[in-house]
Formats: sequence, structure tokens, C-alpha cells
Amino acid sequence: MIDVGALARRDTFARDLGIEFVEASLGRAVTRVTVTDRHLNFNGVCHGGLTFTLADAAFGYACNSQGVVSGSINAHMIYSMAARVGDVLTATAVEISRSSKASNYWIDVVRADGAMMAAMTGTALISGKPVTV
Amino acid sequence: MIDVGALARRDTFARDLGIEFVEASLGRAVTRVTVTDRHLNFNGVCHGGLTFTLADAAFGYACNSQGVVSGSINAHMIYSMAARVGDVLTATAVEISRSSKASNYWIDVVRADGAMMAAMTGTALISGKPVTV
Amino acid sequence: MIDVGALARRDTFARDLGIEFVEASLGRAVTRVTVTDRHLNFNGVCHGGLTFTLADAAFGYACNSQGVVSGSINAHMIYSMAARVGDVLTATAVEISRSSKASNYWIDVVRADGAMMAAMTGTALISGKPVTV
Amino acid sequence: MIDVGALARRDTFARDLGIEFVEASLGRAVTRVTVTDRHLNFNGVCHGGLTFTLADAAFGYACNSQGVVSGSINAHMIYSMAARVGDVLTATAVEISRSSKASNYWIDVVRADGAMMAAMTGTALISGKPVTV
Repeated sequence: MIDVGALARRDTFARDLGIEFVEASLGRAVTRVTVTDRHLNFNGVCHGGLTFTLADAAFGYACNSQGVVSGSINAHMIYSMAARVGDVLTATAVEISRSSKASNYWIDVVRADGAMMAAMTGTALISGKPVTV
Repeated sequence: MIDVGALARRDTFARDLGIEFVEASLGRAVTRVTVTDRHLNFNGVCHGGLTFTLADAAFGYACNSQGVVSGSINAHMIYSMAARVGDVLTATAVEISRSSKASNYWIDVVRADGAMMAAMTGTALISGKPVTV
Repeated sequence: MIDVGALARRDTFARDLGIEFVEASLGRAVTRVTVTDRHLNFNGVCHGGLTFTLADAAFGYACNSQGVVSGSINAHMIYSMAARVGDVLTATAVEISRSSKASNYWIDVVRADGAMMAAMTGTALISGKPVTV
Repeated sequence: MIDVGALARRDTFARDLGIEFVEASLGRAVTRVTVTDRHLNFNGVCHGGLTFTLADAAFGYACNSQGVVSGSINAHMIYSMAARVGDVLTATAVEISRSSKASNYWIDVVRADGAMMAAMTGTALISGKPVTV
């Protein structure tokens, strides 16, 4: 398994949004963010784009953890409830299937009280190139 | 139709990412962003979270343009190619169906050369509350 | 909880395809089918439409099990591998979130050897009407 | 372009459901079905599985029309309204993007009065093998 933390450290966009890498194992990764004022949409709740990016980051770390460059080609997101300023959101990506060409991940996003706020299913194409960290 | 530009001006997260509101009409909205260094992921290409947020912003403006608060409950994203620093991405959301409870939108994301970089299908639940701008 | 078996007995389309109702509890349902020649597509493997219907039937029984008429408005399907004649496919739907307006379900489709062949995420709108069985 | 009609003639599952192949051109295909009693679900309306299979058949014919075996790995379906006995549903699949590895299709399902009843986005993996008809 590659050093996923090193991968996360050069994930400029996610880091800039305050998304932290928490931990990873083979085919699994966890990210976290605390919702602040800068993450709000025009209705005053957390923008879906932040929740998506949190889940997408966990997905990206998990599907590249095997050491072969993998890129998302499909992501399906469901939102169960709104998140608000101060909410701590944790995304956990787990691999649900894998072939030589593609892999599928389930990523759930939960609040600190355990409520599932959102969930993503992601599909990544697997290239033949090694991940360099 | 409400003043969609006013809505976009208070969309803190999207604005902070450099996403501009371009135009809107009833059930339709256009957003734009230029990819910069801060938008990159660990592979050095545009983060899927930026592309998603660009499309999601157009979707949000379009589905609220009718004047009733509407919130995304499902979004499906496909990525056709990577975007790179300097690419100008334009997202256009159009309504494809609408009932009293929910509406569906198609949002495509194209580069300046016309290539379709990504596309989203979004479903929003329609609340009974008026949008205030 | 309503009598889900009674619901399944009048699910003409699913029954005609050989899809059996296996069991249900509140917010959860299981269906099963054995792939036969009539289920094949032009490549000689199980048609995606059968796999979808199997998962959709489990989803429909699970989301109506609470006794309020609920109808699918979004379904996202991923296929991990092909199914072949003789494969026994089991779909299990579980509720992952629920509000007063909508509910979300995860449905996995596994072969008899335990391999996950496909998975669906489904969103249903909840009407105010009781299910009559 | 291959003979798509010949492909459709050996699509056992779709034919058995009454789904007709209407026409195809490169990267595009049209299918049609008339909803009958055998297509109903437990609520007395057209089963989502029939609508899905109709769209999936158009998708399959369109993505294989190029002559290289392609198989669906992701399909996202939205339902705008229920279909009823007697409704004639037409699905039209068009290619929206294509790389050497995967292709994406948009498939809409309309009633005879022009109302969009449902729509699918589908992603297919492209194998290296030629389609034989």
C-alpha cells in the first residue's frame, strides 16, 4: 500500500477547503471537515459541493491506495439532510468491487452524532500507471 | 422569476471558489470558472469537487429560479475527460421535468473549445416556501 | 408493518420474470431469481434489465413496507460483473435514510457464491396514502 | 456500422418483454414498447423495470453500434411520472462522450404525447473485441 497521507498532502483543492485526511488502509480511506461560514450556499446551509468534495476525496484516496492511478468516471450522490455551521462531517470510503479495469466504492458521510447526512457511490477507471508519492 | 443574480451573490462557497454566475432564465442557469492551481487534486488535474460544485451551482440557481425553495436530494455526475489549469469551464443547467414535488435537471460542463468535460443529472425536492432575495 | 408478501403477489411484472419474494422486515426486503435462457441479452449474458428489476422489486417492497405508498424517483445501478445462465441472484434492500418526504435505500445483488454482482441506490418519494394489501 | 437490427433480434430478454427495435445510426438507437397488463407493478402502474429495460436496450444497441463490444457498468435512472396501460413509450439513446476506454449515453423515454416519462444516463466500458452479428 502506498503512503496515502502523502497523496492527501498534495491534494490542494481538498486541503484548501479544510478537508483533513484522517486514515487509510488498502481500499479504504476516511476524511473529515468542520462546516464553517465559508462553506455555505445561498440558503445558509452547507453547500452540496463541500459534501461532495469531502466524499470524493475519501473515494480518491481509497481507490488510489492500491498503488495504481485510478480516476473517477461516475459519482452518484444522495443527500439525506442539510449540514450546518459547526457540524463535523466524516466520510468513509470502502471498496465494494474491483475488476482489472474499474473499481466501485461506497462512501458515507456522517455527522458527529452518527446521523448519515449523505452518501456517494463512485466508479473509477484503473490506469496501468503506478501512483508516485 | 426571481433575481437569480442576487441569489448567486450570496452563494458564499461557490463565489469563494471563483465560480461566476453568467445568466439565468426560468428553469435555466449558466455558471463559469477558470481552473487555477488552487483547484487541482493530487494528480495535478482539476479536482472533481470543483467540477461538481460548478454544475451544482448552475443546478441550484436554475431550480430555485421559479421562486420556490428547492434543494438537491440526488446528483449523478459523469466525467468524460480531465480539466487542466487554464481551462474555462461553463455549466448550463436546464429543467427536464417538473412535478409539484420534485424537479429534474440536466447540467452539462463544456470547455471553451466545446468539448463536453462532464455532465450531471440532478433531482431537487420542491418545498412550499418562497425564495427570498 | 404491512403484509409485504401480499404486495409481492400482485407485482405482475416481477413475478412474470421469475423473481421471487423471499422475506421482509420493516424497511428491508429480499428478492431472488435464477437466471435462465429467457433473461439473456444479445451478448449471451444476463440482461441488465433483469438485474435492475430484481433490485427494484426489493427496493419497492422495502420502501412500501412501512405502510405508506412510496414510488421510486431515482435509481443508480452499478454492475461489477456479468451474470450467466444458472446463477442465483439475491437482492437485499435496506433503508439508509428517511425523512417525511423521501427515503433512500441501498440494494446489493449477490450471487450464490457471495460475489457482489451489482448494487443499486434508490430514492423514493413518500406519498400520504396508505398501502392497501 | 454493424447491423444493429440483427443485434436486437437476438436480445431475448427485451424481445420477450415486447420491446421493439425501431432504428439506429452510429452511436444512436431507438426502442419502443406499449405498456400492457403484464408490465404492471403492485401499484397498478408500469413497473420501473420495464422502463429501465426499454432505455437499457436502446443504450446497449447504441453503444455497440460502433462495432466494438461495450457493456454497461453504470446506469442512472430518473422517473418523472408513472406510465399506464396503453402508453406507448419510446427510448432514444445518444452518445454524449467517448474515450478509448468508456462511452457515455443519454437516453430519454417519452410518451406518445411527447411528455418525458423518464431518462437514463449510462456508462459503458469498451472492450477490444469486435461485435459479431
